[in-house]
Amino acid sequence: MVMHSPEQVRLSVNFSTEQPVIVGFSGGPDSLCLLDLLVGQGVEAIAVHVNHQLRVEAGEDAQRAAALARQIGATFVLVEADVTSYASQERLSVEEAARNLRYRALFLEAQKVNAQAVAIGHTADDQVETVLMHLLRGAGLPGLKGMQTLWLPNAWSHAIPLARPLLGVWRPEVLDYCHARNLQPVYDRSNTDPAFYRNRIRNELLPVLETYNPRIKRLLHRTSGLLAEEDSLIELVTDTYQEPLVLEQHPGALALTRLDLLSAPVAIQRRIWRQAIQSLRSDLRDIDYLAIERCLAFSHDPPRSKQIDLAAGLILRLEGERLWLADGEARLPTSAWPQVPFADSLALPIPGRLALSAGWQVSAEWVADPLEELSSLRAHPDPFVAFVQLPAGVECLQVRTRRSGERLCPLGMGGSSMKLSDLMVNQKIPARARGSWPVICLDDQIVWVPGCCSDERVRVSDPPGRVARLWVSQAAA
Amino acid sequence: MVMHSPEQVRLSVNFSTEQPVIVGFSGGPDSLCLLDLLVGQGVEAIAVHVNHQLRVEAGEDAQRAAALARQIGATFVLVEADVTSYASQERLSVEEAARNLRYRALFLEAQKVNAQAVAIGHTADDQVETVLMHLLRGAGLPGLKGMQTLWLPNAWSHAIPLARPLLGVWRPEVLDYCHARNLQPVYDRSNTDPAFYRNRIRNELLPVLETYNPRIKRLLHRTSGLLAEEDSLIELVTDTYQEPLVLEQHPGALALTRLDLLSAPVAIQRRIWRQAIQSLRSDLRDIDYLAIERCLAFSHDPPRSKQIDLAAGLILRLEGERLWLADGEARLPTSAWPQVPFADSLALPIPGRLALSAGWQVSAEWVADPLEELSSLRAHPDPFVAFVQLPAGVECLQVRTRRSGERLCPLGMGGSSMKLSDLMVNQKIPARARGSWPVICLDDQIVWVPGCCSDERVRVSDPPGRVARLWVSQAAA
Repeated sequence: MVMHSPEQVRLSVNFSTEQPVIVGFSGGPDSLCLLDLLVGQGVEAIAVHVNHQLRVEAGEDAQRAAALARQIGATFVLVEADVTSYASQERLSVEEAARNLRYRALFLEAQKVNAQAVAIGHTADDQVETVLMHLLRGAGLPGLKGMQTLWLPNAWSHAIPLARPLLGVWRPEVLDYCHARNLQPVYDRSNTDPAFYRNRIRNELLPVLETYNPRIKRLLHRTSGLLAEEDSLIELVTDTYQEPLVLEQHPGALALTRLDLLSAPVAIQRRIWRQAIQSLRSDLRDIDYLAIERCLAFSHDPPRSKQIDLAAGLILRLEGERLWLADGEARLPTSAWPQVPFADSLALPIPGRLALSAGWQVSAEWVADPLEELSSLRAHPDPFVAFVQLPAGVECLQVRTRRSGERLCPLGMGGSSMKLSDLMVNQKIPARARGSWPVICLDDQIVWVPGCCSDERVRVSDPPGRVARLWVSQAAA
Repeated sequence: MVMHSPEQVRLSVNFSTEQPVIVGFSGGPDSLCLLDLLVGQGVEAIAVHVNHQLRVEAGEDAQRAAALARQIGATFVLVEADVTSYASQERLSVEEAARNLRYRALFLEAQKVNAQAVAIGHTADDQVETVLMHLLRGAGLPGLKGMQTLWLPNAWSHAIPLARPLLGVWRPEVLDYCHARNLQPVYDRSNTDPAFYRNRIRNELLPVLETYNPRIKRLLHRTSGLLAEEDSLIELVTDTYQEPLVLEQHPGALALTRLDLLSAPVAIQRRIWRQAIQSLRSDLRDIDYLAIERCLAFSHDPPRSKQIDLAAGLILRLEGERLWLADGEARLPTSAWPQVPFADSLALPIPGRLALSAGWQVSAEWVADPLEELSSLRAHPDPFVAFVQLPAGVECLQVRTRRSGERLCPLGMGGSSMKLSDLMVNQKIPARARGSWPVICLDDQIVWVPGCCSDERVRVSDPPGRVARLWVSQAAA
């Protein structure tokens, strides 16, 4: 048996001696080795032991971990976590629940002391096991690349990195290190329990794979490194696509431009959807392959409904060429359309203007040469501009929202009337924008519905009478 | 047991009915299904059976394959291959030798009939096995993406694609297809021999992996598709880097610009080296990870020798900022330097010029105002320009290569002499260019060595005498 000298074990992350480091400290060989190396380098390492209260010997393990931290000369912090009740509350597996509470506790301690990093004792063996677990789960490149040595922003913090300084060190080297430094690790018996998936990978699958290639562990470790390089390149390329693609970003919703998205290579499209979902659901550990497939299918060939429930409460919606991904329909912003922010009807003087929501406004002015302006509008149609002919004495219109059962006579339909609600559907005004959509009236009669049409009864005659130009516009943000 | 209807089995490649398709036809279920589907679509399919002469029943199998082709209505071509002697000649494994001869024969037949493609019956199961084999061998993304549905340019042709139209079809579907169509496949007994690595993957490893995830085959197939998308994106990005990076491409050698290469992301650097090696060694099935690592190390931190043997007879060499990858030193082009193509010495009249190799030439002219021209040369030094002062009556110099033991007195060294060979080493003239390097002489005395220096004895005096301007230049290609 080859003994590795403690000098051979090196951390792949450089820490400063100015700020503390939080070490996830089970007292097992990996975290023990990590803590000892950090203290040996003069780094202020704070050993945080999370007692998951899952095993009868957990309290005893915590005491032994505290003694080991004392032996090394590190500050020891004990955090008690009630994994069982958290797991049942959140409907998580015990492993998942323990992981969530552990990382949460570590990053909480890190924030308290303004730590430079949370450091975890994951080794090269853990990396290989992780890669295999991801492979067996059907992960793509982002999973197959394995764990990162430095992860920031991560699921728990945008400021404090998760560091894995032992990711290049093999478990036998760690054990030899502990032995040589006279450190007696705490052994968690659950590490050999074949009921845990990772233990089966470690103790059963890897030995099988070694019969196919005895170097398999080192090769998988190497492959994960190569894939991490490729993955970071693709992330880089994705960023160059993403900036022009993300049209709007709101709390709980974002919009992509469909045609630009479709012109990107499909690998980029997947990444953009992945990042979009992640930006709204940062707590999702894995974004499901099928969810991304549904995003691709929706964007390539939108259903007639123009909206689907995606996953985890997210919806996908197409409005024009705008693809919305939102945390439920209520979170879709309405700032893209004119919306009336007041309950009653308000006066719109001619000339004059009236402010709506989100920088939108309705404006009115008298027109000197209506026929020429009308023919220019016909040449360059704009549904947010209208010319209306008003009776003598009218100096003011009203702006309000629609009323139940209200009708109008759309211009060009020979004077026949239709329901305003039907008109809005025909004109593809998004359902959630209809209730506050502005309607311009003269007394109780509709004169113009911006984005739809004006009324036959205010049609400009030839020769023209008193004609007002009305328009709705949004000030640049 | 679910039976798949023959209509469910679809080819993922569309073939034209205008040009024949060569089908690699063992007579086994995969190629049988493929051949039958092609013929059913009205494609002119030519079944090419390669008899590897490895098994006693090989001749019998060939006869049964011929009968099956007849049953389907396809042309049958039998090719005899002497795998055993080829394997020992080329020092290949029997599997590798059989594969080489088989593909060679298929593409030879394809060229004869101007086929639109060589089609092979690889199935989704083959894909999964291939991905696992690559994983176990430590392959990166280019291996883990598995086989391509359409491969062009491939190792055997730049014009005829290798097509795998059944890559999305699972083996049980193929078997059901053959059964439903009343086709009785030839079974190659070596497909179950556990001595073959692929058979162990299929019959031993995959069942183990299915105990971890029963959907593992479908997941690995899906993963290979995702990785293929990511891989093709990286190839696309690599191309944008590669064009400005590849400075020169010669038969058997190419040059990259070192600093530009180092500024690319490391994943791109790997790809560029991989492609460079592939362009010189298209027959290499896998480019070794370590070879690429050596390329990276050489380019990041070149050794003092400036040259290493890479692998497979290739060398890596640094000249200035030019990284050469070449099929042995002899293949490095010399066109980058002036080289004398003649054996004797030839006259260089003043004024006049003399042609060297590869568009290079030596020119000479008399100078009216030597002191001004000299000071201008000092301001913008150019080792391929010199001013030499010549005795009265000299109207001609000589151009030749160096002679053994020849010496000169370099300008500015106070008249002390040194060996020309030492000077060339000091001036970093590449070793392989020294033998044909031009030397400009007056009778037997060196006047100027382009790229090095002129001789003290032709130094321009003040006031100057008769001064000639000499220069070496290369016409744009």
